[in-house]
Amino acid sequence: MFAEATGRPEKFAALHFHDLKLTNIVDIMPHPGTSEETLEAVKQFTKDIDHYAIELINEHHGYVFNNMLSSLFSTALTLASKEVASYEDIDRAWMGILRAPVGPFGMMDSVGLETVWKITDYWAETLNDKQSKKNAQFLKEFVDAGNLGIKSGKGFYNYPDTEYFQPEFLKGIK
Amino acid sequence: MFAEATGRPEKFAALHFHDLKLTNIVDIMPHPGTSEETLEAVKQFTKDIDHYAIELINEHHGYVFNNMLSSLFSTALTLASKEVASYEDIDRAWMGILRAPVGPFGMMDSVGLETVWKITDYWAETLNDKQSKKNAQFLKEFVDAGNLGIKSGKGFYNYPDTEYFQPEFLKGIK
Repeated sequence: MFAEATGRPEKFAALHFHDLKLTNIVDIMPHPGTSEETLEAVKQFTKDIDHYAIELINEHHGYVFNNMLSSLFSTALTLASKEVASYEDIDRAWMGILRAPVGPFGMMDSVGLETVWKITDYWAETLNDKQSKKNAQFLKEFVDAGNLGIKSGKGFYNYPDTEYFQPEFLKGIK
Repeated sequence: MFAEATGRPEKFAALHFHDLKLTNIVDIMPHPGTSEETLEAVKQFTKDIDHYAIELINEHHGYVFNNMLSSLFSTALTLASKEVASYEDIDRAWMGILRAPVGPFGMMDSVGLETVWKITDYWAETLNDKQSKKNAQFLKEFVDAGNLGIKSGKGFYNYPDTEYFQPEFLKGIK
């Protein structure tokens, strides 16, 4: 869609950055009409700015990392909205087993709950998926209450005195 | 199913351990007929052995953590089997952005590729899902070649001189 709109599809490719404070990983995603020259130029540019490129061989929504992250969010939201466990316990399971500094709900607070809601809602409506709609509703209650995550000082957790950074949060977990 | 088979369903609940070398987290999953007494006894037992219990309010396959892990594996396998990116680059994206010591394919090597294949194949057949069948096929090629993961010395990676533990694996990633 974008490629055609440019009027010069051979000179079009996606170059996607993540949080620049966290990583120098970028995604390079050509479309079938991207020229070799354009692809090489984009690759060279990422090298020039000292970044590491994940080269997508075939187009895919959400690139590589964001696709995996969305899938983790979706499963965590399903567990919470089905009341399988509390979102704090879901994060504790992730953090305690993987020795990770943050769980999926803490990560959603970092991305911003309005953004996570918009993406969840878009796919729920596009695929007309019942469980995804419930997940979107679960998120919307936080968004409607103004709890948008780290940027608003409150999301699933409170900031900056974040619960999951306190030793008590993982009390009992070794 | 298990509860009825015991002949004393009120005394039945699932107590699920993870890798004891990694974590003291356990899942407690009652079924609707589990008595309060039984639930309390299981909770007390986990405390007595110094473990932390994730209490499942409603039954769910894969408990909490394994459900999220399966979902991450499934998305990573889909990206690889659709040839969106190499499995090494998929792991690099996960490791480089989350500062994680291992990516999803490295984790699958740790679980064992035969186990991951069996679970993937079971759900692919049960749900008759085309992409999951492709993911199962992707795994089966490694299993058929005898590459079962860490326990066989080779899976997606080689062991014990694992590629993703070498600094070169993340070369260029800051």
